Amino acid sequence: MKMIIAIVQDEDSQRVIATLMNEGYSVTKLATTGGFLRVGNTTMMIGVDDEKLDGALAIIENVCKSRKQIATSPSPVAGITGMYVPYPIEVTVGGATVFVLNVDQFKKM
Amino acid sequence: MKMIIAIVQDEDSQRVIATLMNEGYSVTKLATTGGFLRVGNTTMMIGVDDEKLDGALAIIENVCKSRKQIATSPSPVAGITGMYVPYPIEVTVGGATVFVLNVDQFKKM
Amino acid sequence: MKMIIAIVQDEDSQRVIATLMNEGYSVTKLATTGGFLRVGNTTMMIGVDDEKLDGALAIIENVCKSRKQIATSPSPVAGITGMYVPYPIEVTVGGATVFVLNVDQFKKM
Ligand code: NI
Ligand code: NI
Ligand code: NI
Repeated sequence: MKMIIAIVQDEDSQRVIATLMNEGYSVTKLATTGGFLRVGNTTMMIGVDDEKLDGALAIIENVCKSRKQIATSPSPVAGITGMYVPYPIEVTVGGATVFVLNVDQFKKM
Repeated sequence: MKMIIAIVQDEDSQRVIATLMNEGYSVTKLATTGGFLRVGNTTMMIGVDDEKLDGALAIIENVCKSRKQIATSPSPVAGITGMYVPYPIEVTVGGATVFVLNVDQFKKM
Repeated sequence: MKMIIAIVQDEDSQRVIATLMNEGYSVTKLATTGGFLRVGNTTMMIGVDDEKLDGALAIIENVCKSRKQIATSPSPVAGITGMYVPYPIEVTVGGATVFVLNVDQFKKM
């Protein structure tokens, strides 16, 4: 038995939790901090049998991994024509930090 | 030293925490999620000396274990006499999911 | 890799988190409980490379360790002159409970 502790972006959290639960994983979501720190992050605990660990990690990576997105520039800049035009910029979104811990005992009561 | 991480029903959480603390265990309650998931659950962390582990697990099992209760049916149904009568139904309440982790170092500062 | 789980006083938490982050540690603050229990405590998770463990523990001890402070008595008492005078009392503040867990796998995605 392993315990996965995963810290993901809030915007990915609902999708990764729904996907894990659909695949039969049991997920406990810990409340995010209200403070200045790590606003926008969600911490999840997932208990898994050893043979299901890789499946859970694959789901987390698939949904949450850091990726680039094209966004429109937040404020338009002057183009060479002298007109203000928006332009595409690349931003990095998502990302997950994952710890796997050994579980010494596991009990359902 | 071990760390117990126990996920219990909210309705059992005050009683199990009070019982553990009366017996000298140190309990940290993690905030439950505000979201759609696991509403009604409380997650607790309990650090215990190895020789007190079984005592803590026995308290959690005793207070929180899944059990059947008789409840009155939520909406009355028509009996054979044609009158609406409430009837008893059996529901399962409580339950706990418990992980025990090995602690590599423990410090009180 | 190790995971530090540290329970500190709220009044020390901002300072210890800021100090840890300035030194390059990655800290996740878990929401404190809203309940009767452990009001005033903050739980933090810190993932550290083995060789940086002692540095993190030293920061936590330095900022959070239990210490005595001189406070003014909350209500004045009668001095030998018969007048009510405040007097200094020694109170204990701070303190931290720290668990170090072994991390089986660590992934940044
Ligand atoms: Ni195992
Ligand atoms: Ni031990
Ligand atoms: Ni290691």
